[in-house]
Amino acid sequence: MNGAQSLIRTLVDSGVEVCFSNPGTSEMHFVAALDSVPEMRGVLALFEGVVTGAADGYARITGKPAATLLHLGPGLGNGLANLHNTRRAHTPVVNVIGDHATYHKPLDAPLESDIDALTGWLEGWSRRSGHTKDVGADAAAAVAAAQDAPGRIASLILPADASWGEGGETCAPIPPRAPQPVDATTVKAVAEALRSGEPVALLIGGDACHEAGLLATSRIAQATGAKAFTETFPARLERGAGLPNIERLGYLAEQAKYQLDGVRHLIIAGTRAPVSFFAYPGTPSELTPDGAQVHVLATPGQDVTTALGEVAALVAADTEPALQEATRPAVPSGPLTPQNWVDAIGALLPENAVIVDETNTSGLLLPAATAGAPRHDVLTLTGGAIGYGMPVAVGAAVAAPRRPVINLESDGSAMYTISALWTQARENLDVTTVVLNNNAYAILRMELQRVGAAGDGPRAKDLLDLGRPDLDFVKIAEGMGVPATRATTAEELAEQFARAVAEPGPHLIDAAVPPLL
Amino acid sequence: MNGAQSLIRTLVDSGVEVCFSNPGTSEMHFVAALDSVPEMRGVLALFEGVVTGAADGYARITGKPAATLLHLGPGLGNGLANLHNTRRAHTPVVNVIGDHATYHKPLDAPLESDIDALTGWLEGWSRRSGHTKDVGADAAAAVAAAQDAPGRIASLILPADASWGEGGETCAPIPPRAPQPVDATTVKAVAEALRSGEPVALLIGGDACHEAGLLATSRIAQATGAKAFTETFPARLERGAGLPNIERLGYLAEQAKYQLDGVRHLIIAGTRAPVSFFAYPGTPSELTPDGAQVHVLATPGQDVTTALGEVAALVAADTEPALQEATRPAVPSGPLTPQNWVDAIGALLPENAVIVDETNTSGLLLPAATAGAPRHDVLTLTGGAIGYGMPVAVGAAVAAPRRPVINLESDGSAMYTISALWTQARENLDVTTVVLNNNAYAILRMELQRVGAAGDGPRAKDLLDLGRPDLDFVKIAEGMGVPATRATTAEELAEQFARAVAEPGPHLIDAAVPPLL
Repeated sequence: MNGAQSLIRTLVDSGVEVCFSNPGTSEMHFVAALDSVPEMRGVLALFEGVVTGAADGYARITGKPAATLLHLGPGLGNGLANLHNTRRAHTPVVNVIGDHATYHKPLDAPLESDIDALTGWLEGWSRRSGHTKDVGADAAAAVAAAQDAPGRIASLILPADASWGEGGETCAPIPPRAPQPVDATTVKAVAEALRSGEPVALLIGGDACHEAGLLATSRIAQATGAKAFTETFPARLERGAGLPNIERLGYLAEQAKYQLDGVRHLIIAGTRAPVSFFAYPGTPSELTPDGAQVHVLATPGQDVTTALGEVAALVAADTEPALQEATRPAVPSGPLTPQNWVDAIGALLPENAVIVDETNTSGLLLPAATAGAPRHDVLTLTGGAIGYGMPVAVGAAVAAPRRPVINLESDGSAMYTISALWTQARENLDVTTVVLNNNAYAILRMELQRVGAAGDGPRAKDLLDLGRPDLDFVKIAEGMGVPATRATTAEELAEQFARAVAEPGPHLIDAAVPPLL
Repeated sequence: MNGAQSLIRTLVDSGVEVCFSNPGTSEMHFVAALDSVPEMRGVLALFEGVVTGAADGYARITGKPAATLLHLGPGLGNGLANLHNTRRAHTPVVNVIGDHATYHKPLDAPLESDIDALTGWLEGWSRRSGHTKDVGADAAAAVAAAQDAPGRIASLILPADASWGEGGETCAPIPPRAPQPVDATTVKAVAEALRSGEPVALLIGGDACHEAGLLATSRIAQATGAKAFTETFPARLERGAGLPNIERLGYLAEQAKYQLDGVRHLIIAGTRAPVSFFAYPGTPSELTPDGAQVHVLATPGQDVTTALGEVAALVAADTEPALQEATRPAVPSGPLTPQNWVDAIGALLPENAVIVDETNTSGLLLPAATAGAPRHDVLTLTGGAIGYGMPVAVGAAVAAPRRPVINLESDGSAMYTISALWTQARENLDVTTVVLNNNAYAILRMELQRVGAAGDGPRAKDLLDLGRPDLDFVKIAEGMGVPATRATTAEELAEQFARAVAEPGPHLIDAAVPPLL
């Protein structure tokens, strides 16, 4: 077998079953090898940012990596922004990056570039496969590295001649490193802080945002009176009726400061001490209240779920968690507003949904409206690099073909990776996209004020305006094979949303929601 | 004035008049400062790959840099692929990349990343502005560095606090380094090779592809019998009736080998010795014929135009150049084919056009059909990173508002940076886009054969297929505010093309041209 065949066979043996792909000439042997390993599903995307975002979404839902297939440095470059989000989500992803044949590289052909500089930027695991016989072993190492707790990006650079050479050897799966346990002293110290009688807040992230962590957190909060928050942008947050409803720490520093006001002990579990997203003149960037003591229960690489359970056993042995009741907003009516569009989603969210949330300013009221909806997952913009939503929805839908995927998407963000719609159509993915179309980079209008930027003239405002011409997402979606409708009232949104989730396959709703601010 | 104001004022004083922008929060003071320096034109794009490609196209036409405004590492990441093409084109571009405030960086906020690693990948000039008072001087240095012969990417990383701080100082323009002269010995040695009586080929690139270089090259070829070629992918090639018609070296190694067959002396002027785009199993990558001697007349940083003139003075003092006669194909008819669509363009190309060519396989017959058309510029895909055409057309149209810009575009490449159409509509740019819609990555179908990939099964072919669903570029363009039509016959294409170039503003034609192969 050739190197490409040994690569795909080894990936499949290691549990990697999907390869999101945008290939070029240097990857043609990989593409050809797909026919010799039918267990690997190739999913084509029209842009590498869709490829990498889809791999992220797939892994957030399944907990295991997909592969990406990328064409040389520029192909990886196009995929970097969504990989930045992946890095912040601690999602396992295996990049396969085709490179020129080893003897071709020194010639500095037009597409030659320093791929290793780009994989270095990802701060994950990276290896260049030097010889055909090593490709299988390198692939098994990549899959293990991607899954070493807490999960990371593993990049395998594959020269064309390593791929096409004969003498490939498959490699058995390599077990990844499990999360490290938290020692008993740390657990005890946290329990003592919780019993101190002083105000305590618990900030959870990573795997603690899944059911077991949420239940332990709620028990701790109920027993001790501690406030509890999830990190601002969790990779995957389980929520809805029957689960504890743990509030997210606010994106705006003002919100977060209000939430943490008066806290004397801040317990960090599976995430890091909070900092503001951006700096603002004259405002501190660290959000831990002055004088508060920070207690790290578990870092992202540690077993946060077990540790929270142990803390709960010490401080909340007889306490039940507070579970969210099933409750929904009424189906709203009237012209669309920032409040009634979220009510429509809350009223009609189907069972077992995955919400891919890139609503930015438009979604400020979403968490309250969906808190008591049927149980669902929420995926969020972990790294702040916009254009994540549509690709992540592709990956989530490939990962969970029997779950409805709801992509709540801002207009500006949507345009970064809009061709994801074509992949949704091609693969007939059950994704309902609602574009909050306010014809503006609304978040930047707000930020222009918040940073205290001198002047606020017409030319500045013009650079934050997405109107002139207005984007027509119905036509754009139809042009890529996705049925689409436009909603200007809450009734229309509710009716179109209900129909879209009831029908299999992708749908898009262009919702004329005015800006919040 | 604050740092942002000193930056924009210095850029304008140094001759930078346009800033292609996709800002975020860290760039808000730059955006606000636009109102205090009205000489700087801000042009908004919905994706950073459009921003960087537009800056490339602008500089290819004007010969001077535009600025880009990019948001942190992920924003630069999205712009890298087109900057790769810029690097290969030796185009001057000044990137302004906003970064977190200096005191915010160590906190590793969600959008934090190693921006310097990405600017390093560009292999140009890069500097981080440390203090507000230095921003102006750094900006002047960046503009000079970008224009140092032969032109490069200069990246200025601008921390938010350097931008918003008071105490900014403007800086006078710094003269860039002019092209280095070629010494007389080299000129004489080349003249001797041309007079050797052995078969000679002259391969020109860079500025030699403009009028003066082409005229000298033609005179040399006429006088000595040498073959003459331009590099395969010139940044800007002047051609058409009244200019010498110098053939481009073929993209396919087989073509190039045929063109250079039998050559004993290969003279390189303003480019590098030719290598194949990709490696193929069992095929050499260097295209210089075995046994041929390579003579470098001028490297890309040298004054190739003067050097060619000096060679011509030695070997062709009394020889006139061969000038292309004005001749056009007839307006064609019948269902669209790979031959007749290029005839329609050749028949109807307006005066003084700029052709942005990303036709890939569909355009193989284009040069012959347009050779005798009115004089025009052709911009090509210098670095091979697809998705360059639509953004470069934006920049070319901003640079030359009185010239018709014709973007001949492949379907697969178009989808990478499709939101460029919105900027074309917003700025009412005179761009006529013809999308060659063959529902396939046709070039990869060809490459799958050429690399000798084992197997050619249905799953491999599926990854090269852009049908299912077919892309409807009419709807996509209309969704972004660009009027569009569909052509399935040569008559329709000719009629629609003539109308589009006659009307101001952007137009798109979705042309159903079947694959060449």
